[in-house]
Amino acid sequence: MSLVKIYDTTLRDGTQAEDISFLVEDKVRIAHKLDEFGVHYIEGGWPGSNPKDVAFFKDIKKEKLSQAKIAAFGSTRRAKITPDKDQNIITLIQAQPDVVTIFGKTWDFHVREALRISLDENLELIFDSLEYLKAHAPEVFYDAEHFFDGYKANPEYAIKTLKAAEEAKVDCIILCDTNGGTMPFDLADIIKDVKKHIKTPLGIHAHNDSECAVANSLMAVSLGIVQVQGTINGFGERCGNANLCSIIPAMQLKMHKESVPGEKLKKLRELSRYVYELANFSPSKHQPYVGNSAFAHKGGVHVSAIQRHPETYEHLRPELVGNSTRVLVSDLSGRANILAKAEEFQINLDSKDPVTLEILDNIKEMENRGYQFEGAEASFELLMKRALGTHKKFFSVIGFRVIDEKRHEDQKMISEATIMVKVGGKVEHTAAEGNGPVNALDNAIRKALEKFYPRLKEVKLLDYKVRVLPAGQGTASAIRVLIESGDKQSRWGTVGVSDNIIDASYQALIDCIEFKLHKDEESEASRK
Amino acid sequence: MSLVKIYDTTLRDGTQAEDISFLVEDKVRIAHKLDEFGVHYIEGGWPGSNPKDVAFFKDIKKEKLSQAKIAAFGSTRRAKITPDKDQNIITLIQAQPDVVTIFGKTWDFHVREALRISLDENLELIFDSLEYLKAHAPEVFYDAEHFFDGYKANPEYAIKTLKAAEEAKVDCIILCDTNGGTMPFDLADIIKDVKKHIKTPLGIHAHNDSECAVANSLMAVSLGIVQVQGTINGFGERCGNANLCSIIPAMQLKMHKESVPGEKLKKLRELSRYVYELANFSPSKHQPYVGNSAFAHKGGVHVSAIQRHPETYEHLRPELVGNSTRVLVSDLSGRANILAKAEEFQINLDSKDPVTLEILDNIKEMENRGYQFEGAEASFELLMKRALGTHKKFFSVIGFRVIDEKRHEDQKMISEATIMVKVGGKVEHTAAEGNGPVNALDNAIRKALEKFYPRLKEVKLLDYKVRVLPAGQGTASAIRVLIESGDKQSRWGTVGVSDNIIDASYQALIDCIEFKLHKDEESEASRK
Repeated sequence: MSLVKIYDTTLRDGTQAEDISFLVEDKVRIAHKLDEFGVHYIEGGWPGSNPKDVAFFKDIKKEKLSQAKIAAFGSTRRAKITPDKDQNIITLIQAQPDVVTIFGKTWDFHVREALRISLDENLELIFDSLEYLKAHAPEVFYDAEHFFDGYKANPEYAIKTLKAAEEAKVDCIILCDTNGGTMPFDLADIIKDVKKHIKTPLGIHAHNDSECAVANSLMAVSLGIVQVQGTINGFGERCGNANLCSIIPAMQLKMHKESVPGEKLKKLRELSRYVYELANFSPSKHQPYVGNSAFAHKGGVHVSAIQRHPETYEHLRPELVGNSTRVLVSDLSGRANILAKAEEFQINLDSKDPVTLEILDNIKEMENRGYQFEGAEASFELLMKRALGTHKKFFSVIGFRVIDEKRHEDQKMISEATIMVKVGGKVEHTAAEGNGPVNALDNAIRKALEKFYPRLKEVKLLDYKVRVLPAGQGTASAIRVLIESGDKQSRWGTVGVSDNIIDASYQALIDCIEFKLHKDEESEASRK
Repeated sequence: MSLVKIYDTTLRDGTQAEDISFLVEDKVRIAHKLDEFGVHYIEGGWPGSNPKDVAFFKDIKKEKLSQAKIAAFGSTRRAKITPDKDQNIITLIQAQPDVVTIFGKTWDFHVREALRISLDENLELIFDSLEYLKAHAPEVFYDAEHFFDGYKANPEYAIKTLKAAEEAKVDCIILCDTNGGTMPFDLADIIKDVKKHIKTPLGIHAHNDSECAVANSLMAVSLGIVQVQGTINGFGERCGNANLCSIIPAMQLKMHKESVPGEKLKKLRELSRYVYELANFSPSKHQPYVGNSAFAHKGGVHVSAIQRHPETYEHLRPELVGNSTRVLVSDLSGRANILAKAEEFQINLDSKDPVTLEILDNIKEMENRGYQFEGAEASFELLMKRALGTHKKFFSVIGFRVIDEKRHEDQKMISEATIMVKVGGKVEHTAAEGNGPVNALDNAIRKALEKFYPRLKEVKLLDYKVRVLPAGQGTASAIRVLIESGDKQSRWGTVGVSDNIIDASYQALIDCIEFKLHKDEESEASRK
């Protein structure tokens, strides 16, 4: 297998995405994760552009990476000065990276309009910036910005810019589809022509504006390109950069090109999730290879076939990339799936015990009514405990009432809840206000129960999601509420379903509190 | 420009996505939108698989589409019976679509393992299912399932299955990458070989499991394929189908292939958003061509260049697909956008009138708070009317109260609303129950107002959607409610936003009723 090197730019080009902003510590943590995964180059930032990037290069020097090389990004020198006087180039060298990557102009239009210099001057700029860097950095790469657009506009000149880099004995020339508009067949034709003129190893840097970044990168690899630049999860400005989470497994499993060590591929999903977490983004369900839905099957025809021969409806075995097959619960699937789910939550069910079968039917019936235990593992655990008789009743709610009131057209609404609970022999009757009925009810429940269980004060409601489920045959549409809560130690999700949104929220709130009480009791018991 | 026909399967394959489930009414609305956009074929469902799909084909018959043809999906006949006895094929014909599309097996492995018949029997099955359908339907397409995987396993047999379809004189043969695992260069080689053997027009149906569905479809088009199957926003099982929102503009603007009428392309973003709304999904920010970030620029270098020469960092002009350039962290966008929106709803605003500028700022501020007028055109129209002083106040709500009550742990919840309204000089004070607080409030409002405006009895609440908006800096999270209502003549959407779900629902309900009253008065006035 021939080797294709991975150049990750999550920490530089990836941070150009709207809403992505990593702390220096996040960047260091991600760099470690990328290094462990086997990425060859990690582009850490543009030290000439901001102090945060300078700090990263300083901090990363103190860390021990197992194999990855750290790259710093910058541009060719400005016009009319020598490289040794150019502040951008000086900063690049001062950052002491293992690799320096600079970009330069390919497109004649940009040379004239953005740089406002002659075409020949631009060639000098490329050549002597690179020649100077080669003398001061261990490895030097050249990013040919707008290469494909430049080539389409003026192929001779575009090739000349690459020749200038080649003459400077640069280690790799990267062809960039900066605007992301290139079609895969055009890209292939252009690369074939470049290879006639350039002997330096070539790389590809694609953007996803045409939804072709992954395909363009793979196309380039199939034509002998030896370095792929991209980001984890395809993060990046506008529509993102080429997604390494889709490129790496395709090269390894479909094209028999080695990139990261083969055994690391099983950590792909974990890496993807890790970067989502640090970016504070929800992972994309439908993301190829690593998404929750990537190997999920709904249709009945598919499901039975999948069970006999997974390859019939899966392009590869999900385990290879750290993912797994999921059979979605619909009327067609069911028991096997629920048993698998119980196992996932470490609850042992014996599929042959008639009591178990009854439980399973209950759960299936609940799922048909719109319950969903993805993201509501706490409700699932409580449900199983109730059914198995291992559930302890810490309290009961005798009744409650929520009032939402607007006394005058121009007045703000008021929400108030009253509740009556019973703990042991004692009854507590109280009331609370809130922002909206659910918040009022949540406040009232806690107020009533905190008296008996002070540790409930630690619980915070972190997220609240409502979905109106489409009406089934002959039934009113149901409302599903998902609540995520947490305390200092952990986070848990609960669910409620009803035709009444207050009732659905109530169920999820009660489960949230019961789960907390069970959890605390279990952790106390284990400590004894 | 040569013509490539668009075959949309959002309503069939798109609904295989986890969490996507359209009501029959949603499907009809989407079909209208696709028809207006200029899509050639709309695959409405698999009538043999479920009663909801049967209902769609019945309902769509009553609608007037301007040009799109409706296709029904199914499979080849079962083994050992003739097509006229096959329930699946009978149901397809009974649905009376303009086109019937059936899939059959290409992959020898599937024939043996899934169908458990001989390879020759499968060829007969393909041939005589199609021959029979050709005699009973105006147009017949053949989806060669798993074509590329089948070809890789056994090219001779894969071609034979296509030949069987060709002999049945089918109108188009669609090569399907069912598992979505095919690489673009492999796909190209295989299509080139197919074209040596098959003269029937060819189509492509790609899935996105390798993140190559768009590129694969475009690659196929560049090789002369004349029908592209896909879905709006790439909805579909697992990682989705080929995304028509990326394929259509690439064909039109980059490949000079005609598909939908050129002037329709400006409606691309609107179409994408419409389908997201009905699916109750947040649009993907980074989606190519149509996403909010698709033409957003963050980097300072980019921004100044963009302003001088947009083509320097944009692969095409965003206006061509109904999108716009956004410069992040600045106030440069906004106004032009809102003016464009007002124009869309046929309200004339003069951008230079200072009153107009004030209105525009208000609207912008509302959008920042979470209002969204996509899918809530009625609220937008009312808002403009209120601001322009052309709004008539038919009634005022003096106050209301909603009570949700559970009197005992095991009892069902009760929701009751009271309301006091004033119409002319008269006050009406009344109450009603409902399934949940919003339904109770809706019932009470109507009960109070129907006395004065009997035509409100015609209004039906068709859909209710809730979205919890992420919290901004220092603000509580807001709740957006979208309500869709209709009477015999039309349908309209309204929106409300508040930190209180009852308040947000109340706003949307009031807009719904005001819109109906305005609409009726205007239509009466125009009749006089």
